[in-house]
Amino acid sequence: MLRNARVARLATADARGAPHVIPVCFAFDGRAIYTAIDEKPKRTAPRGLRRVRNIIANPRVALVVDYYAEDWRRLRYVLIRGTAVIIDRGPEHRRAIARLREKYRQYRTMRLEGRPVLKISPVTIAAWEARQGSRMATAPRRP
Amino acid sequence: MLRNARVARLATADARGAPHVIPVCFAFDGRAIYTAIDEKPKRTAPRGLRRVRNIIANPRVALVVDYYAEDWRRLRYVLIRGTAVIIDRGPEHRRAIARLREKYRQYRTMRLEGRPVLKISPVTIAAWEARQGSRMATAPRRP
Repeated sequence: MLRNARVARLATADARGAPHVIPVCFAFDGRAIYTAIDEKPKRTAPRGLRRVRNIIANPRVALVVDYYAEDWRRLRYVLIRGTAVIIDRGPEHRRAIARLREKYRQYRTMRLEGRPVLKISPVTIAAWEARQGSRMATAPRRP
Repeated sequence: MLRNARVARLATADARGAPHVIPVCFAFDGRAIYTAIDEKPKRTAPRGLRRVRNIIANPRVALVVDYYAEDWRRLRYVLIRGTAVIIDRGPEHRRAIARLREKYRQYRTMRLEGRPVLKISPVTIAAWEARQGSRMATAPRRP
């Protein structure tokens, strides 16, 4: 799911603990999750976006990838909790953009080079599957 | 979208501001959003669930309903930020359950009567649509 899902939802919270959540495109390299502050039309400069301001104030984030079906026995999700940093440039920034473009054709014609990337380092990964009942795995990780 | 979407993602945060996010089924009555702590298999008693513990410690929540398509011009979402309370019984609890069962056939055979319902009262509602560019509407609301 983490490699193939086309969309995830990213939750952040401000310094006072007020949560925020939005859909994001993302790439997972087996260790970290990367999501671009892309050109999808936004009126606000990257650093004015709520998710970016929240991460600067409070780096803790949660990201969920889930599958919905009307047959609720097929429901499942993967929940990642961890910390996020903003990457503006450098080799990791370039690798993240390359990975995002590999996964999303749509990014291949967008200028991402000058735009920040969020890197999410998992601290815990939990998977839930309706069929199994409850959580099937909780893998604490040190980023 | 708020009436018809089958799944939303609910973000909460604990007292220290660590966010959490999960997919939820929900019903919207034009004023508030209701989501059940249902029987989808969980090992934990309702009040042990992270979302419930978070809401007790910090009632601020965010909920997003979004539409994903490979044609990114069609992307859109509605983001609700507000406060949540836990309702255990009474007329509003009964109405919420009735509304959830009206929307989700799956709930008609589940015992929800003894289980808590989360009520989310919007403080702000923001809609974003790729085609329009940026936010099209931010409607501050007093719950």
